[in-house]
Amino acid sequence: MNFDLDLSTRVLARTPGAVRALLAGLPDPWTRTTEGPDTFSAFDVVGHLIDGEETDWIPRARIILAKGHNPRFDPYDRFRHRARNVGRSLESLLAEFARLRAENIELMVSWELSDAQLALPGVHPTLGPVTLRQLLAAWVVHDLGHIAQIARVMAKQYRDEVGPWVPFMPVLTDHETPRS
Amino acid sequence: MNFDLDLSTRVLARTPGAVRALLAGLPDPWTRTTEGPDTFSAFDVVGHLIDGEETDWIPRARIILAKGHNPRFDPYDRFRHRARNVGRSLESLLAEFARLRAENIELMVSWELSDAQLALPGVHPTLGPVTLRQLLAAWVVHDLGHIAQIARVMAKQYRDEVGPWVPFMPVLTDHETPRS
Repeated sequence: MNFDLDLSTRVLARTPGAVRALLAGLPDPWTRTTEGPDTFSAFDVVGHLIDGEETDWIPRARIILAKGHNPRFDPYDRFRHRARNVGRSLESLLAEFARLRAENIELMVSWELSDAQLALPGVHPTLGPVTLRQLLAAWVVHDLGHIAQIARVMAKQYRDEVGPWVPFMPVLTDHETPRS
Repeated sequence: MNFDLDLSTRVLARTPGAVRALLAGLPDPWTRTTEGPDTFSAFDVVGHLIDGEETDWIPRARIILAKGHNPRFDPYDRFRHRARNVGRSLESLLAEFARLRAENIELMVSWELSDAQLALPGVHPTLGPVTLRQLLAAWVVHDLGHIAQIARVMAKQYRDEVGPWVPFMPVLTDHETPRS
């Protein structure tokens, strides 16, 4: 499947509702537990998605669209949310993420991006040269990866409760060494 | 985390809404594509979840609760949905799944299961002896695994669109040999 701006926008627009449908109102044993040290709980994932809205995808798109002589992105802090969201409720993060995402989509749609703009270059601090098209595709994939992560981290809380079903439930053994 | 009937029910009750939030209204390039031969599209996953409501979890719980001398489960057909749902729309499957799940949860809650009942045995045709508690925990994990699968299968449609981001997006390389 080739990148398509409208198809991408439709997924990006659904993510806050999907995360809310998964998590809103669930108690801490589902939302505050992780799959290992230095990994994200569902609560952390929502905080990380908020960080993405504020510091990653749209700010990097702006750098590309500014067409400066050095379109290098600022490094992204994967743990910004930890200090930022101490004492916050999951509900407040879900609401904040939905608001930020809606604003960012409205902004992106207002740009009416052309194919020529989607081909403009940026420089990722680790990965090197990328295009705006790749950045926006990565935004979509990043959402979906973290939705999968929320489901996986929740599933693993029942790792020892399913008895002999473990080999039939690959979600329980995905990322035995958690990567995110 | 130990199995808890109320915590389990709360996740089971959210799944139809979560799947709807992810998928309703999305066009076929997101919902009808797979991650490889003999694997499920998002559409197939919804069909598979319906099969679970009709032929797997509650029917097996009934076998256990009947306390017959041979509480052996019928084998489960992972591809029942393929023939069953030819010509169906995703919207109709989402509505059917929500209806069946609501009915099944209402039934399960009406049983007011005791710890003694949760410890009752059944026999899985492949896995051997299991308890009702393990069956219900597996139901929860099965839901979450398939939500993760929907997100993963969608993400993989953009595998070639994210350029150098692939190593930062583990969802793109999970299940390189798809297992479900």
